[in-house]
Amino acid sequence: MKFNYAGRMDNIKASEIRELLKLTQVPGIISFAGGMPAPELFPVDAFKEASKDVLAEKGSMAMQYGPTEGYEPLKQKIAERMKKVGVEADLDQVLITSGSQQGLDFAAKVFIDPGDIIICESPTYLGAINAFKAYEPQIIEIETDDHGMIMEDLEKALDNNENVKFIYVIPDFQNPSGRSWSVDRRKKLVELAHKYNTVVVEDNPYGELFFEGEIQPSIKHYDTEGRVIFLGTFSKILSPGLRLGWTVADKEILSHFIMVKQGADLQSSTISQMQIDRFLEIYDIEEHIERIRTLYRKRRDLMIQTMEEKFPKGVEYTYPKGGLFTWVILPEYINARDLAVKALEKGVAFVPGGSFYPNKSKENTFRLNYSNANEDMIIDGITRLAGAIGEMMKE
Amino acid sequence: MKFNYAGRMDNIKASEIRELLKLTQVPGIISFAGGMPAPELFPVDAFKEASKDVLAEKGSMAMQYGPTEGYEPLKQKIAERMKKVGVEADLDQVLITSGSQQGLDFAAKVFIDPGDIIICESPTYLGAINAFKAYEPQIIEIETDDHGMIMEDLEKALDNNENVKFIYVIPDFQNPSGRSWSVDRRKKLVELAHKYNTVVVEDNPYGELFFEGEIQPSIKHYDTEGRVIFLGTFSKILSPGLRLGWTVADKEILSHFIMVKQGADLQSSTISQMQIDRFLEIYDIEEHIERIRTLYRKRRDLMIQTMEEKFPKGVEYTYPKGGLFTWVILPEYINARDLAVKALEKGVAFVPGGSFYPNKSKENTFRLNYSNANEDMIIDGITRLAGAIGEMMKE
Repeated sequence: MKFNYAGRMDNIKASEIRELLKLTQVPGIISFAGGMPAPELFPVDAFKEASKDVLAEKGSMAMQYGPTEGYEPLKQKIAERMKKVGVEADLDQVLITSGSQQGLDFAAKVFIDPGDIIICESPTYLGAINAFKAYEPQIIEIETDDHGMIMEDLEKALDNNENVKFIYVIPDFQNPSGRSWSVDRRKKLVELAHKYNTVVVEDNPYGELFFEGEIQPSIKHYDTEGRVIFLGTFSKILSPGLRLGWTVADKEILSHFIMVKQGADLQSSTISQMQIDRFLEIYDIEEHIERIRTLYRKRRDLMIQTMEEKFPKGVEYTYPKGGLFTWVILPEYINARDLAVKALEKGVAFVPGGSFYPNKSKENTFRLNYSNANEDMIIDGITRLAGAIGEMMKE
Repeated sequence: MKFNYAGRMDNIKASEIRELLKLTQVPGIISFAGGMPAPELFPVDAFKEASKDVLAEKGSMAMQYGPTEGYEPLKQKIAERMKKVGVEADLDQVLITSGSQQGLDFAAKVFIDPGDIIICESPTYLGAINAFKAYEPQIIEIETDDHGMIMEDLEKALDNNENVKFIYVIPDFQNPSGRSWSVDRRKKLVELAHKYNTVVVEDNPYGELFFEGEIQPSIKHYDTEGRVIFLGTFSKILSPGLRLGWTVADKEILSHFIMVKQGADLQSSTISQMQIDRFLEIYDIEEHIERIRTLYRKRRDLMIQTMEEKFPKGVEYTYPKGGLFTWVILPEYINARDLAVKALEKGVAFVPGGSFYPNKSKENTFRLNYSNANEDMIIDGITRLAGAIGEMMKE
């Protein structure tokens, strides 16, 4: 290296997913690798209408600087939407961010000094690991099962480590595992955060995309002390290309996020905020989300069914009740990075699981995305993938 | 404080400008405080056209995730525009950012470990100070005159301090001083950066807004070793509400910026990038920039002329040959923060100069913006301001 970079640069690496996504744009590749919404459902016409209205009616305002905190009418609509997950938020508890990814960066920037401890699920979202590692924390991973983080393990970690800065969780249809937290674990997490005087960062991009029953109360719903920072986004219910999300938090915590946002990018796009605000006025987003749920449920069903039929015995996978992903666990002797190479040769892409562990990886795992593949691609892709796995099985 | 924040949070504070801007939205206040473009020049209709086209022709793509590096056709146009300031950039030397403010944050994140030294002009852009301070550097300020940084002082600082991480400069119509660097100083800066093996961060939001002569070659133009990181933006030539800028740098440095961007916000808005790209195809932005120059030149003339007529003797100010700002120097016994209170009572707002010094402030200075005030406001506002100053003068 020619130049003398900051120490943090040794900690972070190019996102494996983002690098892989470039590969998967090769024509003919069936990709289960990204976490992309189905583009055929984007409400393009309604959004075009909303854009036109905003520029026709408030064009100069839309193109000008706006407040760091966000466009107030949109903040109001977000506060209103938060009631769906059981959260009453005042307007000064809402900050508009450039995607919820920015909320992850800010959480780390606001809380982490080098060497500080944070806790997360094992496995956890790769983009969060990358965002956090730039601030040089020690990350403790806590095992998870089908009901969320193992609370006994979490309590042990909190007991053994003073000054845990925050606990990062994705309680609904987790990326990458597709699993969700039970209500009991949600309550217990808040209880432990209180007992050990720490903060919870609740990342919730997928909560509205449930396939059965109804939306779960957020962890923040059980928060009586302003300890839970809730990160939301329009990426999975409307469009990721707009890069707009939000943070809902205690006023004092949020004031730190706002200061950090001033330095990071001054504010999120005024025009995009106003377009989304208008869109929410002229379009029934609930119906739209219902359409997303219906399509993804069908794709989940087909992917699981095809895996049941085609995958060799000894290969396990989660049954996601919402969201975009399922998580596959291979026999321990198969390394999913090797499988990825073989699968790519057969024209199928996925993300090896190793990247989703901040510390010690379980290399016999991988993530499959079903939201951005049609029926033929799912059947064909899973069949080819099953073939690749078969070639690596010992018996 | 209830929670245990990172040490960096002691270093940063809410931007005085952003806080002030809230005040200045009170009706009746004449504000010279912000750094806002004249909204009456925003090309709203053409941008509406561009938005419509993008959504009609490539709607799903516009609403989907895109590459971290940016939308390739827009990167091409940016590379093309860089030739105007004498820079030949390959596509893999261009990164689209969420405003050039994000480039400032990334420069700090990529290079600064706590305690590291960086160098900047005195005074310098408040938003840069805030962005940098989050990474806990020591900041050395170098005196400036009407031709840029004093090179002897810079060399002394480089000589006395090992491992200066970067030198941050705004060579064209600086914010806040309105002053520009001579060609000699530009060349000398690159020479010194080479001699002392450091990096230059060249922040150039105003270069195209010259009022006389022609555009200046950038500092990066003289860079033969990939030591200069150039930050550009669409904020002042098109619209700040879109929050889109760019970084042009050596490939190795840029690869670090890209990694950091993945953690910070994944990518900038796909739709905004495509809209600007389309806008640049259907609209003559050069003509548009000429209109901006003409209007701002007129406003600069009127502000300077009114100051000449109304300001008491003993008050000095710069004569900006482009950009958005002039810089006022009061007699040393007047504190501009006190003046600001008095001026607000008379219905006029500006930003006291103290905030533009990272270390020891010169409190007898302030910044005036003329781009976002019409003729009546300039005459009336400067007259009232002159009155407020007069009341604080000793004779």
